[in-house]
Amino acid sequence: MDGNWVKALRESGRSGKKCLELEREKSNVDVDKLASFMFTNEAMERNERLLDILKADPVFDKTQNYFRGREARIEASLARGKRLRQLQVKHNWSKEEYNTANELISEPTPYGLHASMFLITLREQGTPEQHERFLKKAEAYEYIGCYAQTELGHGSNVRGLETTATWNPDDKTFILHSPHLTSSKWWIGSLGKVANHAVVMAQLIIGGKPYGPHPFVVQIRDLKTHEPLENIHVGDIGPKFGYNTMDNGFLLFNKVKIPHANMLARFSGVDPNSNKYVRPSNPSLVYGTLTWVRSNIVLQSGSVLARGVTIAVRYCSVRRQFTDRDAPEDEVRENQVINYTMVQQRLFPLLAACFALHFTGRGMIELYDANQAAMKRKENPGKVSEDSNQTGRSAGPEELNPGADLLADLHSTSCALKSYASTVAGEGLEVCRRACGGHGYSSFSGIGSWYADYLPTLTWEGDNYMLTQQVSRYLLKSARAVLKNASKAGNFNAVKGDNDTTAILKTYKRRMDIGAGFDVLGNDEDLVAAYAWRVGYLTFQALQHRDEEKRSWNSLLVDFFRLSTAHAQYMVVKNFHGALASSSLQSSLPTATKDVLHSLFRLYALHTLEKESSEFFQSAACTIRQIQLARTKTVPQLMTDIRPHAVRLVDSWKFSDWLLDSSLGRYDGAVYEDMFKRASEDNPLNKVVFDPYPDSGVLFKKDERSSMKSKL
Amino acid sequence: MDGNWVKALRESGRSGKKCLELEREKSNVDVDKLASFMFTNEAMERNERLLDILKADPVFDKTQNYFRGREARIEASLARGKRLRQLQVKHNWSKEEYNTANELISEPTPYGLHASMFLITLREQGTPEQHERFLKKAEAYEYIGCYAQTELGHGSNVRGLETTATWNPDDKTFILHSPHLTSSKWWIGSLGKVANHAVVMAQLIIGGKPYGPHPFVVQIRDLKTHEPLENIHVGDIGPKFGYNTMDNGFLLFNKVKIPHANMLARFSGVDPNSNKYVRPSNPSLVYGTLTWVRSNIVLQSGSVLARGVTIAVRYCSVRRQFTDRDAPEDEVRENQVINYTMVQQRLFPLLAACFALHFTGRGMIELYDANQAAMKRKENPGKVSEDSNQTGRSAGPEELNPGADLLADLHSTSCALKSYASTVAGEGLEVCRRACGGHGYSSFSGIGSWYADYLPTLTWEGDNYMLTQQVSRYLLKSARAVLKNASKAGNFNAVKGDNDTTAILKTYKRRMDIGAGFDVLGNDEDLVAAYAWRVGYLTFQALQHRDEEKRSWNSLLVDFFRLSTAHAQYMVVKNFHGALASSSLQSSLPTATKDVLHSLFRLYALHTLEKESSEFFQSAACTIRQIQLARTKTVPQLMTDIRPHAVRLVDSWKFSDWLLDSSLGRYDGAVYEDMFKRASEDNPLNKVVFDPYPDSGVLFKKDERSSMKSKL
Repeated sequence: MDGNWVKALRESGRSGKKCLELEREKSNVDVDKLASFMFTNEAMERNERLLDILKADPVFDKTQNYFRGREARIEASLARGKRLRQLQVKHNWSKEEYNTANELISEPTPYGLHASMFLITLREQGTPEQHERFLKKAEAYEYIGCYAQTELGHGSNVRGLETTATWNPDDKTFILHSPHLTSSKWWIGSLGKVANHAVVMAQLIIGGKPYGPHPFVVQIRDLKTHEPLENIHVGDIGPKFGYNTMDNGFLLFNKVKIPHANMLARFSGVDPNSNKYVRPSNPSLVYGTLTWVRSNIVLQSGSVLARGVTIAVRYCSVRRQFTDRDAPEDEVRENQVINYTMVQQRLFPLLAACFALHFTGRGMIELYDANQAAMKRKENPGKVSEDSNQTGRSAGPEELNPGADLLADLHSTSCALKSYASTVAGEGLEVCRRACGGHGYSSFSGIGSWYADYLPTLTWEGDNYMLTQQVSRYLLKSARAVLKNASKAGNFNAVKGDNDTTAILKTYKRRMDIGAGFDVLGNDEDLVAAYAWRVGYLTFQALQHRDEEKRSWNSLLVDFFRLSTAHAQYMVVKNFHGALASSSLQSSLPTATKDVLHSLFRLYALHTLEKESSEFFQSAACTIRQIQLARTKTVPQLMTDIRPHAVRLVDSWKFSDWLLDSSLGRYDGAVYEDMFKRASEDNPLNKVVFDPYPDSGVLFKKDERSSMKSKL
Repeated sequence: MDGNWVKALRESGRSGKKCLELEREKSNVDVDKLASFMFTNEAMERNERLLDILKADPVFDKTQNYFRGREARIEASLARGKRLRQLQVKHNWSKEEYNTANELISEPTPYGLHASMFLITLREQGTPEQHERFLKKAEAYEYIGCYAQTELGHGSNVRGLETTATWNPDDKTFILHSPHLTSSKWWIGSLGKVANHAVVMAQLIIGGKPYGPHPFVVQIRDLKTHEPLENIHVGDIGPKFGYNTMDNGFLLFNKVKIPHANMLARFSGVDPNSNKYVRPSNPSLVYGTLTWVRSNIVLQSGSVLARGVTIAVRYCSVRRQFTDRDAPEDEVRENQVINYTMVQQRLFPLLAACFALHFTGRGMIELYDANQAAMKRKENPGKVSEDSNQTGRSAGPEELNPGADLLADLHSTSCALKSYASTVAGEGLEVCRRACGGHGYSSFSGIGSWYADYLPTLTWEGDNYMLTQQVSRYLLKSARAVLKNASKAGNFNAVKGDNDTTAILKTYKRRMDIGAGFDVLGNDEDLVAAYAWRVGYLTFQALQHRDEEKRSWNSLLVDFFRLSTAHAQYMVVKNFHGALASSSLQSSLPTATKDVLHSLFRLYALHTLEKESSEFFQSAACTIRQIQLARTKTVPQLMTDIRPHAVRLVDSWKFSDWLLDSSLGRYDGAVYEDMFKRASEDNPLNKVVFDPYPDSGVLFKKDERSSMKSKL
């Protein structure tokens, strides 16, 4: 075919490039100032520096990513993991630089769990001798490992793990065994193809008595041949909805012996002389790590969602479809899709959520750091422990040592926010994909794969539904304390040392009979207070169900989910509002930019209020009239205010085209050229010619690829 | 590795098989009677007969489906399409039998669009001469074709298509041309690799004057070499979020000449002598086809969703996690996940929706048939026309010929229901996938790929957001008529010939000042009436915005979406209620089964009412008290009533394991064995051994597959 006439073709009407230029002209949002305030110049400089290194290396070329099958993707991803490690050594990268490079590739590689959980666990749960024995080789990538906790039959319920590690007093060894099929380790990242070692969480059994899950270091593959060792059955668990560059694996043991030294013994262990269990120290540190991990999920959720919003906002500014129905008859130019209120209704609240979640995550991290510092002062080692994984995922604040009240509050908040933020981000990405219309369905949109890869976050580090029980348990506990103290004090007045939860519960109790009367449409503080009020209402309602009506825990799970969600939304609104009021933001951003951020805050808060309206009016946090006004007047007005700034607002997240790998989300708006190039030139399927006739008995007329032969 | 100890392993605790046996014992729902009522024995017999044929044929073996990359999937799928055609000839299958076989394979094959749109369009829009010329060869699979309408730059807005077909009076030909890059045909099924012909929708131009999009038959590839013809650029558009067994393609023309005979001329054309345009006959028939297509999407949406619900309900009955928090301390057995109210809250309303949508779809089809019959009697040819595709997708009831009032109502209803039903099914599948916890993410769950393949239905045959404008336009029109007639009649009394929409709008107007007072919790008719009332309220509210406040159309799109959704939900509740009351159901099902269906009806209606509560109380269709009671008492009670019947209810959809291709959804509950077998034995990735070390410079230690070599 003659390609010249094809190459000469251009898109019709106003070009995508022109569309985005005009969008950027329309707004006075200061992209660079906003970006450096959100991410710091240092981080952005690091990004650019590493981006140049990666783009220059053919191993990281993304051109074929969307076309590859699973096996080819794993191959490419392992090659990338190896090269990344080589570059880390060559450039002497810091952990931060290594992680940033990993994010720029933005696919999980089979080295992922070695570099994170395996090393962390050895470091934090190993004794100095064990660091000598395992950590050194692991840091040198002679031992390549994974963290094997989840099993085929047990995920969330860590206490139910079936794999056993039985102490053998005769030869001072542990015998690792998988008694059932459901005991098989499952979903373990980096285990399927790459790991030669694993930290295995197994039920410790001494003298026939179980002591709960503990961590054991086990070699699983030969260091030379990389074949599984005897009595070990290990492999890849197969394809998934996403995350297919990772070799999630399974692992079974048939009475495998390991030496005493292989039980990670910093916090607990077995005394080989007395054959007795050595109790763990300091369970409260458990919360430390989990809170830290979840706080980071909250922080990331903002930028995870922002990737999808960036792509959708840019493409909807380029795409034109239909002329406005009220436009004059002779109007020929079609309307930009982003001008349709139905599209704005879907995208702008998510745009607002990106910033809301980002500032909330930052707030969480700051609170966490403050807490860790406070605990250090309390003579805790302050060293954070992965011991958490023994009990943490199903542990509740009850188990806290006394005085860790703030930490319990932080733990509960991190559970509520992890659950809420990752759900908002995950589901928001799918909304962004659909807002791109038909082309959102193409892999070249760059949203689908990103969405699919992110979905596990809704399940791991605590299932988003399960977590809401921990939040509710804590809120009920706080509410009981509030009532108890009030019956002593005779009132619900605030006292020194009340944490935020106690404070909002008391406020609600003080005023519940007077009524709220919040000016949610006219006053930001009242808007935040309305969210707090709703939490108070739902908490005491749940408490009544549980303590007075003696309803079963199971019968209240739906109420608990609502309660946790309400608490998370309150925290997000509060944190976003706090960030806007902060002197750091006030001093570093121009007025125009601050005004747009303020519109985003109000849009997030009022759109969410309208969405959850039934709880807001049932709790009398606001009136039906206010909700109707929000829906018909305020929210639509905010959409109009934000509209001209949409493109610059997504620009301020500073995602490079290389990172996004999206035709629709290109910074320059050359959407259709890029779609066409990928389909027409990069697509390997266009290198073959099929025989189309049912009775021909062959599949191929012509095949320019080595790998395929006629089949039928 | 020694596999014997592995083969000896069994799942711990109560086996999945036992779990499902017990579930089936618990319920007295008559699975076979229910199934034969829903699908007819004839259809089920056909299913089984065809299933045996397909299972016996290696071409249809599904074992490797989830492991294949896109190219291998297209290969396999084309081979299946060919074999399906061979079997159709061999067994002399009817169209129904062919479609059933296609559904059992349940993947789109590259023959899909030839067998549907291409043949239908030739048949219905071609003249007898054109049937001779094109249809015969197409039916013999000498011409293999597709239907090329959508373009890179235009989907929903058909009038905006850029491809031109210019009439050349000198040599009586049409010149097909793609003036811009955005003119490229895009997303065209069966075009990418297989079609040698296409029906191309192009803007007809005569003497410089445009006459809108019309259908032209164009040969695009050589019949022998299958290479593209000169000045035609055609190929596959690349990978998608799903639907990757289909060769969706692109197509560009560089001034390609086709004879006069290639414009499908049954309804309109060009007179070669006068060089004048021949006007189309009977535009109203447009609605016929679109309504039929959409009605079928509604009917399918029930079983589409039921596949996911079947898998999730079975797996959640097998899976056990955590002991009940209120269980005695010594309770060791873990709770079936389906016993958790949070899981029931997610799955049971969807279970109810499956039946609701099924009966609604059936109602739509019956209405459609009745209408077609009525139109035939009105001396319309009654033959349904794909002419629709010229204007249909953006056509509005205004264009109806007088007297087609019922048809307009049906058209509007089909738009509302297509938009609502396909959204409920698509989003519901993702809810089912997540309800399966971590394993829902595995491809072996069988939900992810099914969900991804279904998603385009939310966009095609009218984008689910766009369609709601047509619904609202019709409802506003009806409301205006109601007001007009009332001002004549002096009242809103019903008159003979009122269609359902007019009736409910009048009822609302008659009683809006008196109030509703519906007993939504105690009386089914009142429950349906409350849904009708809400439609009336939202319709007149929108009318006020548009006609009195003169709000712009664009500013009302969000209200229109709510209005259309409310109308769809009313139709679903009404149809479900009607089906339950029908003598056919009453006479064919045992009481116990009818009672469970009735619980499903109430669950669907009351759960939806509670979800949309703000509109129900704002319209005063019910009180806040009723909503609170629904949430805290009635809905939870219905969940409890339905719980023991969940497994039998999904059994009654009669999905074969071969169709579902799901480890989690296996009829016999052997979930973990199946997961393990697929991962451990079927997984090709476990036939290679990677070299894990970063500096080794090679990727493979061992590779038992031909296709891969060391790369790094």
